[in-house]
Amino acid sequence: MKTQAAVAWQAGQPLTIETVDLEGPKFGEVLVEIKATGICHTDYYTLSGADPEGIFPAILGHEGAGIVVDVGPGVTTLKKGDHVIPLYTPECRQCKFCLSRKTNLCQLIRGTQGKGLMPDATSRFSLDGKPIFHYMGTSTFSNYTVAPEISLAKIREDAPFDKVCYIGCGVTTGIGAVIFTAKVEAGANVVVFGLGGIGLNVIQGARMVGADKIIGVDINPARQEMARKFGMTHFINPKEVENVVDAIVQLTDGGADYSFECIGNTTVMRQALECTHKGWGRSIIIGVAEAGAEISTRPFQLVTGRKWEGSAFGGARGRTDVPKIVDWYMEGKINIDDLITHTMPLADINKGFDLMKRGESIRGVVIY
Amino acid sequence: MKTQAAVAWQAGQPLTIETVDLEGPKFGEVLVEIKATGICHTDYYTLSGADPEGIFPAILGHEGAGIVVDVGPGVTTLKKGDHVIPLYTPECRQCKFCLSRKTNLCQLIRGTQGKGLMPDATSRFSLDGKPIFHYMGTSTFSNYTVAPEISLAKIREDAPFDKVCYIGCGVTTGIGAVIFTAKVEAGANVVVFGLGGIGLNVIQGARMVGADKIIGVDINPARQEMARKFGMTHFINPKEVENVVDAIVQLTDGGADYSFECIGNTTVMRQALECTHKGWGRSIIIGVAEAGAEISTRPFQLVTGRKWEGSAFGGARGRTDVPKIVDWYMEGKINIDDLITHTMPLADINKGFDLMKRGESIRGVVIY
Repeated sequence: MKTQAAVAWQAGQPLTIETVDLEGPKFGEVLVEIKATGICHTDYYTLSGADPEGIFPAILGHEGAGIVVDVGPGVTTLKKGDHVIPLYTPECRQCKFCLSRKTNLCQLIRGTQGKGLMPDATSRFSLDGKPIFHYMGTSTFSNYTVAPEISLAKIREDAPFDKVCYIGCGVTTGIGAVIFTAKVEAGANVVVFGLGGIGLNVIQGARMVGADKIIGVDINPARQEMARKFGMTHFINPKEVENVVDAIVQLTDGGADYSFECIGNTTVMRQALECTHKGWGRSIIIGVAEAGAEISTRPFQLVTGRKWEGSAFGGARGRTDVPKIVDWYMEGKINIDDLITHTMPLADINKGFDLMKRGESIRGVVIY
Repeated sequence: MKTQAAVAWQAGQPLTIETVDLEGPKFGEVLVEIKATGICHTDYYTLSGADPEGIFPAILGHEGAGIVVDVGPGVTTLKKGDHVIPLYTPECRQCKFCLSRKTNLCQLIRGTQGKGLMPDATSRFSLDGKPIFHYMGTSTFSNYTVAPEISLAKIREDAPFDKVCYIGCGVTTGIGAVIFTAKVEAGANVVVFGLGGIGLNVIQGARMVGADKIIGVDINPARQEMARKFGMTHFINPKEVENVVDAIVQLTDGGADYSFECIGNTTVMRQALECTHKGWGRSIIIGVAEAGAEISTRPFQLVTGRKWEGSAFGGARGRTDVPKIVDWYMEGKINIDDLITHTMPLADINKGFDLMKRGESIRGVVIY
């Protein structure tokens, strides 16, 4: 079949809208009509050329929502008409990782996914007979896409695509880090470094589970207002205090119970660890640091009881937990609407990237 | 009263045996006749002058066992004749830390203890009217000592002092890191870096809870034999493999579930983290690094599911858990006898330090 798609031909170049060829789903695969997709920093990171694992030409996009149009042989859990969110972290429920009950990082198809291919090591996308690579197993910058069955979360049919697509990455990454990775308990003091889209979702996750102080840290004071709307109780501008770690320790009577780094800055990661409470503080790294950057601290910080951890896709098991988060949105427990600041047709996707680069959007969403 | 004690007059000098004055126990304090005390690297660290918090003159020693001789006013949980192990990590059961249920690092008397003083900010030891400082709240290199009630674990009376004194530090630090800090489960793969006294206790802790592979790592092959006796199943000499992290990852089909650093070397700490399994590996730092040294790694190691943690006094709550470990020893679940390689009278304590410095003892114990 043919589908409209935004193709990334090479690093650093704008996407171009093309009518590409899409092969139907093979064994264990599903054809999905994407109805909406967010534009995430990770797409930009790959497009910029900074991602050492970036492959071109590719159809980017990993934050979508849509409807099953066709299923390949062997598919048992999805049928035509099901509403789905594609998962860049699949959930096969049979690999060592899924069965460990200790991680969400399913590894069954990691090898081929990392190479921009479906599990049989080929691509479904092509143009003029030349293959175009998949991206993160999702390629949601295409009106139609093919994904493995294990890379699709079935969601309720009354959920609006143009909102819940954001659950495919940003919402789950932030809220999940609080609920699935850190398992923050009611009454805890939480610090969030970086009040962009991820940070705002960490904040609303912390509010949802009943955290006490929810302290936001950002050098941009303009971000205060939105953060307060999402549950932030205290704001610290590192430019306005002598020492941000000391400021947090004072505000929390000894340190935060949990901290979240949502920027990708290794200096901030150290502050995030060291501002947590002696004896039990846990610091969760969410942000992606530049290639080669390293974190460091004195080991004494850990020996005296702090823990340094990380979170990918919010620790969420995609097929199990993503539908729950969709429910939370539909029940009004979390706010997605106010985070989606811009919508556009696929033809304007490059404008969406520009808005994001300039920090003028929290989340831009392409509606097909 | 008077008591024989080994006094550390200044950094870098041998101890001298003196008859010092010891004031009786004040409010909340207990007079203990020390019957045996281990000589630990931490005593040596302070004596050497490397410990930035070292204070002189002091009576060192923090790994003892003895009998209550007298109690001060207000003491309700101990009486004359009780057998006790002094605790450098007390357990008051009323401070924020004790009540958190998340840490063993009781802070009630930390300020005075760190200054070599009893909780009323004075010392009980003196010679010729000049005060001598306490050390770690225990000062077990004295035949009689005074300690706060909250710094004494009451133990069973049939336990031999010359063995269970080692539970006052080394045994608990190693076994506790496995059982109380990491909570290693049966079937887990465990790696232990450094096969000295702490490492051997980590190994026997891992064996006690039913770990599967217990891999010891040490550059000294002579340490293999004893480690195997304590439960080590595999040995890796970093000098004999190209890359110790790769060797462990191969041996454990992806990485260790838990690793323990028992050396205090920040380069090894990084290896200990990076040899753990993606998704759930936990690395516990036990060793004390030199002042100013820092650990580092790429944040990707944490974002992909590894956790970097630490353990002090094995995560054991002294008054609650130390008596349990004494029981485990008396029930034959753990081996202490073979770790105590040398015993000596107080007069020979400097020889005990020399043996330890030269690596010729696992644990030397002074018997009064």
